[in-house]
Amino acid sequence: MTFTEIKPLLAPNKSKIVMLVMDGLGGLPLKSGGKTELETANTPNLDRLASEGCLGQTLPLDYGITPGSGPAHLSLFGYDPVAHEVGRGVLEAIGVGMYVNKGDVAARGNFCTVDESGVIVDRRAGRIPSEEAEPIVERLRAIKLPGVVIEINHVKEHRFAVVIRGEGLTPDLEETDPQKLGVAPYEVKPKNAGAKKAADLYNQWIAAAREIIKDEPKANALTLRGFATDPGLENYASRYELNAACVAVYPMYRGVAQLVGMKIIEFKGESPADEFDALASVWNDHDFFFVHIKKTDSYGEDGNFDGKVHVIESVDLALPKLVALKPDVLIVTGDHSTPALLKSHSWHPVPFLLWAPGAVRPDDRQQFGETQCAQGGLGTFHALNAMPLALGHSQRLNKFGA
Amino acid sequence: MTFTEIKPLLAPNKSKIVMLVMDGLGGLPLKSGGKTELETANTPNLDRLASEGCLGQTLPLDYGITPGSGPAHLSLFGYDPVAHEVGRGVLEAIGVGMYVNKGDVAARGNFCTVDESGVIVDRRAGRIPSEEAEPIVERLRAIKLPGVVIEINHVKEHRFAVVIRGEGLTPDLEETDPQKLGVAPYEVKPKNAGAKKAADLYNQWIAAAREIIKDEPKANALTLRGFATDPGLENYASRYELNAACVAVYPMYRGVAQLVGMKIIEFKGESPADEFDALASVWNDHDFFFVHIKKTDSYGEDGNFDGKVHVIESVDLALPKLVALKPDVLIVTGDHSTPALLKSHSWHPVPFLLWAPGAVRPDDRQQFGETQCAQGGLGTFHALNAMPLALGHSQRLNKFGA
Repeated sequence: MTFTEIKPLLAPNKSKIVMLVMDGLGGLPLKSGGKTELETANTPNLDRLASEGCLGQTLPLDYGITPGSGPAHLSLFGYDPVAHEVGRGVLEAIGVGMYVNKGDVAARGNFCTVDESGVIVDRRAGRIPSEEAEPIVERLRAIKLPGVVIEINHVKEHRFAVVIRGEGLTPDLEETDPQKLGVAPYEVKPKNAGAKKAADLYNQWIAAAREIIKDEPKANALTLRGFATDPGLENYASRYELNAACVAVYPMYRGVAQLVGMKIIEFKGESPADEFDALASVWNDHDFFFVHIKKTDSYGEDGNFDGKVHVIESVDLALPKLVALKPDVLIVTGDHSTPALLKSHSWHPVPFLLWAPGAVRPDDRQQFGETQCAQGGLGTFHALNAMPLALGHSQRLNKFGA
Repeated sequence: MTFTEIKPLLAPNKSKIVMLVMDGLGGLPLKSGGKTELETANTPNLDRLASEGCLGQTLPLDYGITPGSGPAHLSLFGYDPVAHEVGRGVLEAIGVGMYVNKGDVAARGNFCTVDESGVIVDRRAGRIPSEEAEPIVERLRAIKLPGVVIEINHVKEHRFAVVIRGEGLTPDLEETDPQKLGVAPYEVKPKNAGAKKAADLYNQWIAAAREIIKDEPKANALTLRGFATDPGLENYASRYELNAACVAVYPMYRGVAQLVGMKIIEFKGESPADEFDALASVWNDHDFFFVHIKKTDSYGEDGNFDGKVHVIESVDLALPKLVALKPDVLIVTGDHSTPALLKSHSWHPVPFLLWAPGAVRPDDRQQFGETQCAQGGLGTFHALNAMPLALGHSQRLNKFGA
């Protein structure tokens, strides 16, 4: 259930809203009777916010459904991720500064290693370091194809993004990564007749690229995934009358923020403290701030329980910088759960903390953790309600009806 | 989530359901760590029902969304308020005993004061007492216009309602209240070509009315708002096979009850005890009873925390009268929250108490209050589920499927 008639209710004011997202925040205890990562972490500052505010837990998509990062963030931003599916290629491309407009087709690329017979022996080309991959990407910029413009940017390690711009292109293409070893990369196949032109162009581009990199020791081949075009999402200014800023280290999250019209803030460093300093530096220029912490998810994916605990503690330690700015509404949550126990994203609900002095109804929960959140005053709710909650608690919505 | 297939399941019986609505019941503590109005009130009778029954909290519309009284009551009555928006003019008119049928156009009227140049100097004509306003309304009854029937009734103080009945009338009209001082009342403007006839008639009526009241010391002009027609809601008899009665002091709530076909019970007095006596007097004639307590909301709107506490205590004190009737299902809730702290309706969830001896599954909550309700056995749910809960607990619904 989500209320669709928000826009006519908007009543902008001078309030400031912060949405702090620790990626993959939700966790699991390593053994029965134990604590989750968040419950294990020593978080005096988050616990104080929890005791003054109200807790709950969100479903990014629905009960039992594990979300990807893109859909999970769209939910938090208030865009139904089922209605607005955003291709990973688009997220990757805009995350490294390339525009993807209506009609362009973007893809994520992975360098891989193939043997003499052409079959894949390493799907990530030994995760070659960025400094080795960048010059290879640079050489691929030489590829030209008739009638279209091609852009390519390096992302990180073995990953890059490609965008082809032209007429008559649609992104209904099957990925070329066989997702296993011992098989050659697939050709790009169109899923329907309309996508044939885009498939042909991408296959020509791959052929030219393979020729250029064939003698590389590790990155001697490539696969493409996540073909997609601009989903045409309404931006925050129009949808919420918010002038939004994004503070994020990792390209993909900058990408999804840019998709909804947030200004991407450039800054040095990548610690939580650096991110909060960056936020503080633009505090007067915006009224909504999305702050993204990546490493909770990275350590979760690695199965590194203690590493995830430590990242949460480093966020807590830096938190007073953020609270000192006196936001009217501060939401602390995750986009999804990434329990170290499972080494992957999971379907579990996500801890949600809402702090809004003088506007929130406190519950009696005293600590920020999964068990406390499951019994919080906000209940269990779809993450699509996060933005209406933020707008309501910042008193930016008129009442509906008389 | 609400189950739409209730009607085929209806299995009427002799049970009695009472829905006691304390308007704007939900509140906030005045300071961090404090108690809400409901939690502050000494409510031994409500607490006993809470300990025997089951608690929860409702969302009248959705997370973060503040409802008006009309939509909030429609939700409690089981009518989606977004799908069925009811104009305020209709609520005001039927609240003072005028029918609004399909094709009629109703409006809320305010007497106001204009100066010699015609601009508004008091939007509410000094809130003239009802005994001064009633004779003025009486004189306006003399106005006749060709081809239509006009009805006008006084509401309270400076407020009245007008209904025009005729052929070819539609209510898509802009209000004439400029909502500020120093400006003359606007003309009635049609929002589309189809509404021109209604606009012309209302403008003629206003001209005639202005002529009649021009020498009044305070109520020498008027504004009209909330133009609307009958929303055509299915009545309780058809929708739920319930013969419903409404016990309410304030016209608007009698109005919304009448819209869904409840019989409006006339009675003397306006205290909770008076209302419960009125209910008792018709106990044998109905099987569903909506009882509305207005002053919880009024004190909330005034920022009078203690006043709101006192009203809740007066309801609690009178409650044994109601319980003595032995209802099969008793729901005690609010239509929305009106925290004295905010002096307005708010978006916060609403406490909900369900008592049904032998039918309800008790939770372990012992007191009726926001914090307890947030952790009650019914969870957090849309107010549209209140009627299905009432019907279920009165065993008026067959099972769905075999």
